[in-house]
Amino acid sequence: MEMNSRFLQACQRKPVDATPVWFMRQAGRYMPEYRAIREKYSLLEICYQPELAAEVTLQPVRAFGVDAAILFADILLPAIPLGVGLEFAKGEGPVLQNPVRTLDDVRALRPVNAESDLGYVMEAIRILRRELTDTPLIGFCGAPFTVASYIIEGGSSREFLKTKTMMYSAPDVFHALMDKLADVLSDYLTAQIRAGAQAVQVFDSWVGALSPSDYEAFVLPYSQKVLAAAKNEGVPVIHFGTNTTTLLPLMKRAGGDVIGLDWRIPLDDGWSLLGDDVAVQGNLDPIALFAPLPELKARVHDVLRRADGRPGHIFNLGHGILQHTPVDNVKAVVDMVHEYVHTGTQVHRYTGTQVTRR
Amino acid sequence: MEMNSRFLQACQRKPVDATPVWFMRQAGRYMPEYRAIREKYSLLEICYQPELAAEVTLQPVRAFGVDAAILFADILLPAIPLGVGLEFAKGEGPVLQNPVRTLDDVRALRPVNAESDLGYVMEAIRILRRELTDTPLIGFCGAPFTVASYIIEGGSSREFLKTKTMMYSAPDVFHALMDKLADVLSDYLTAQIRAGAQAVQVFDSWVGALSPSDYEAFVLPYSQKVLAAAKNEGVPVIHFGTNTTTLLPLMKRAGGDVIGLDWRIPLDDGWSLLGDDVAVQGNLDPIALFAPLPELKARVHDVLRRADGRPGHIFNLGHGILQHTPVDNVKAVVDMVHEYVHTGTQVHRYTGTQVTRR
Repeated sequence: MEMNSRFLQACQRKPVDATPVWFMRQAGRYMPEYRAIREKYSLLEICYQPELAAEVTLQPVRAFGVDAAILFADILLPAIPLGVGLEFAKGEGPVLQNPVRTLDDVRALRPVNAESDLGYVMEAIRILRRELTDTPLIGFCGAPFTVASYIIEGGSSREFLKTKTMMYSAPDVFHALMDKLADVLSDYLTAQIRAGAQAVQVFDSWVGALSPSDYEAFVLPYSQKVLAAAKNEGVPVIHFGTNTTTLLPLMKRAGGDVIGLDWRIPLDDGWSLLGDDVAVQGNLDPIALFAPLPELKARVHDVLRRADGRPGHIFNLGHGILQHTPVDNVKAVVDMVHEYVHTGTQVHRYTGTQVTRR
Repeated sequence: MEMNSRFLQACQRKPVDATPVWFMRQAGRYMPEYRAIREKYSLLEICYQPELAAEVTLQPVRAFGVDAAILFADILLPAIPLGVGLEFAKGEGPVLQNPVRTLDDVRALRPVNAESDLGYVMEAIRILRRELTDTPLIGFCGAPFTVASYIIEGGSSREFLKTKTMMYSAPDVFHALMDKLADVLSDYLTAQIRAGAQAVQVFDSWVGALSPSDYEAFVLPYSQKVLAAAKNEGVPVIHFGTNTTTLLPLMKRAGGDVIGLDWRIPLDDGWSLLGDDVAVQGNLDPIALFAPLPELKARVHDVLRRADGRPGHIFNLGHGILQHTPVDNVKAVVDMVHEYVHTGTQVHRYTGTQVTRR
């Protein structure tokens, strides 16, 4: 069977036969196949056993025919060898026993060798590349800011009080941590690509808590380093965040062949803000998947209509799939996206970086 | 003593001797005077006793010399006479025993007479107007969407899954609830103004979870009704939300003499997006108040520099004061704002609605 290259083509803003679609967190608790495995194994147990991680990764590919697989893993896996004492408390999300608050805490972080310390991730990628003969595989990591926020707060946060207070009160500590994380995450992403990941996504899920000037001073250089390391390996790079409307031009400057958009900005407005020289991914509200089919279809079509058939759109949600999402609706969206025909009222033709409307 | 009218002047975009400043949630747990009262009374007990509510309202006016007092109350007070079973569980935020999920639930909501059912609020306002001889008093309510989100979810929420699912799957129920709330909140705000509130703020704190098209279809008409009812009483109206960058033009259309901005959008960019015919309020990150004074000052000055001395800026945070905020820093910000001298490099002169830069 020939490789389905829609996704990789779209990352490079090349024309495709149909808009490619995949979902953030497409392997997860909303799928009965996943829940069956989760009954026997914890989240970390699945991650640690490459065969299980690979199996879970494949479940949505088989079930929905998405155009890309994304490795099943957690953005906090690289925090484990750093020695911050990560645990996933039942129903509570991640808890870190040794959060970082001082320069000594940063210095106490252990060196990480991605190939050895996170070798189970690379092994899952190698298994997946053997299994996935016709679907490309996406690797990923958290961006330095988003990973730092967990490491500083000691878990999930709503306000990011400790993170921002460190930025504003002890910038040397914050920069030291970000510098360390940029190195670790660059190595981790590079290792994933060398193990076989055909594209990577950098998740800066919580960066939208920041103002543009804080993003520029405290985040951009470190994200740039990670994104450049991946780019240097020659695969497409997706740069994702939520609540990022005012950050989009800076995120583009930080890097990425594809920029993720959430539902707060209409896809066409977001793309205009970014410019034509970058692809976009998004941006259905994950909660639209809970709507009846006609309403869901109207919302899927609205996103596609705004993308307007321009090369360089990857259909996705604006954030990860939620736990109680109806499985049938996920399958329905894949079909809606693949079957959609751009009516050509506003078809764009690319001539170099120039856009012509006809 | 003569009335300090900086705040009311700025709401009308009239020139002022110094930029007015007040803080959302300026009466609260970060103040020792407030904690002393909270040791003896619950949140609702304070609200129910007008003398206590008035006393708590006055605390930050006395302590910091802010340019406006804001009534101490909770945006969910009008939900109590609606019969949704509001409780404030210790450390858990609001919990509603009878959330609204169906059309029957909406129909079962009890009629509310603001003057009688929420008379304790009006009484607090009357006491405050006697006490506050030199500082204007702001009344407030939650906007229909933000209040609806609590009533549908049954409490606080991060994703607004039930709220949006109702929008997308049972729009008739959602519209019926919003219609009911728009009436109740219009009456409530009108009653506050008639009791003596000299300005009002409508808090749509969580509306930034929505896309612009959902805002327009499901929120705008109801916010418009509440804002117009207040406007009709002849006092300045502030329209506030967070995460609203893509919603700002629609929020302006919904109404308000002043639009609140959060820290995610630079104040000058937000004001440009809104246009010169409206005042703005904001937009320091509440977490900047945790910074050392020189850093805090730089951030306060950055906001003021972006406002550039244009008439119509009210200094505030981008969201409410956080619980552990250092009290001394709050006082320091009031002084920094009052002492700031616009250097006039880009002074704006208003000639009608026209702006001239010299």
